[in-house]
Amino acid sequence: MGVLVRSVSAADRDAIEAALTRSGAFSETEVQVALDMVDAGLKGDYDLLAVEVDGQFAGYACFGKATLTLDSWYLYWICVHPDVQGRGAGRALQTRVEQYIREHGGKRLIVETSGRRDYERARHFYESAGFNLVGRLPDFYRPGDDCVIYSKLLEERG
Amino acid sequence: MGVLVRSVSAADRDAIEAALTRSGAFSETEVQVALDMVDAGLKGDYDLLAVEVDGQFAGYACFGKATLTLDSWYLYWICVHPDVQGRGAGRALQTRVEQYIREHGGKRLIVETSGRRDYERARHFYESAGFNLVGRLPDFYRPGDDCVIYSKLLEERG
Repeated sequence: MGVLVRSVSAADRDAIEAALTRSGAFSETEVQVALDMVDAGLKGDYDLLAVEVDGQFAGYACFGKATLTLDSWYLYWICVHPDVQGRGAGRALQTRVEQYIREHGGKRLIVETSGRRDYERARHFYESAGFNLVGRLPDFYRPGDDCVIYSKLLEERG
Repeated sequence: MGVLVRSVSAADRDAIEAALTRSGAFSETEVQVALDMVDAGLKGDYDLLAVEVDGQFAGYACFGKATLTLDSWYLYWICVHPDVQGRGAGRALQTRVEQYIREHGGKRLIVETSGRRDYERARHFYESAGFNLVGRLPDFYRPGDDCVIYSKLLEERG
């Protein structure tokens, strides 16, 4: 059945929580903030997309247009359940998010992530997807944990 | 009577709107977003400080702790009424904001502003106050209008 990207419904909330918790990338507070944004997204404040692998929920993305900009968007959260990592679910999700944004008039996508060593795989994920490093806020999250900012220009496609 | 920094109350809202509008720096949408954040600030979602010159409201700042960080804060809006610019109100406000943040355990302050030519004075204001350029998001606000990000480490004071 492979990898499928679809919309998110309230029924996905438990699976989203499990993916966030099990990923090991997020603190308890981060999981709570991410879930609050899922709830806000279900009410229309953010955009949400889910990815399935072989018919099972595998991960999700939370994103939205940046306030006061003409055509810039933020990717706030992207999370794939560790049990299905390496199957291309994250890449399928990110590609579909970019397509969705282009379809809604967006021209660029901004991601803020951690500069910590254990986020090297996440940074590589963005760099290999064509994101450019545009900023680094020293010790932003906490001492030794910089905020690293990437931007990707979303090309028009035929 | 000189320059005095004080807290903001709901009674300041009209004067804040006038300062934002008259400054000429903000679009109608930006003024609306700034006022929405004043309203949210009056309810406790953001921190607000006002500055008076000779007993008259002269400007305000809207700021707050950055979610998911240990001790980083954002300065979202700072606006001085054009009639009193050049009297040191902006600098008094920014200095007091930094003191407030230090008193609340904050260690650094982030500002996002425009890279446009007509924001050169604003950028100079931050640079001369010890803010360091830490990022630039090309065309973030609209084509030709970059987002420029500054960070300032707030020193401990005796």
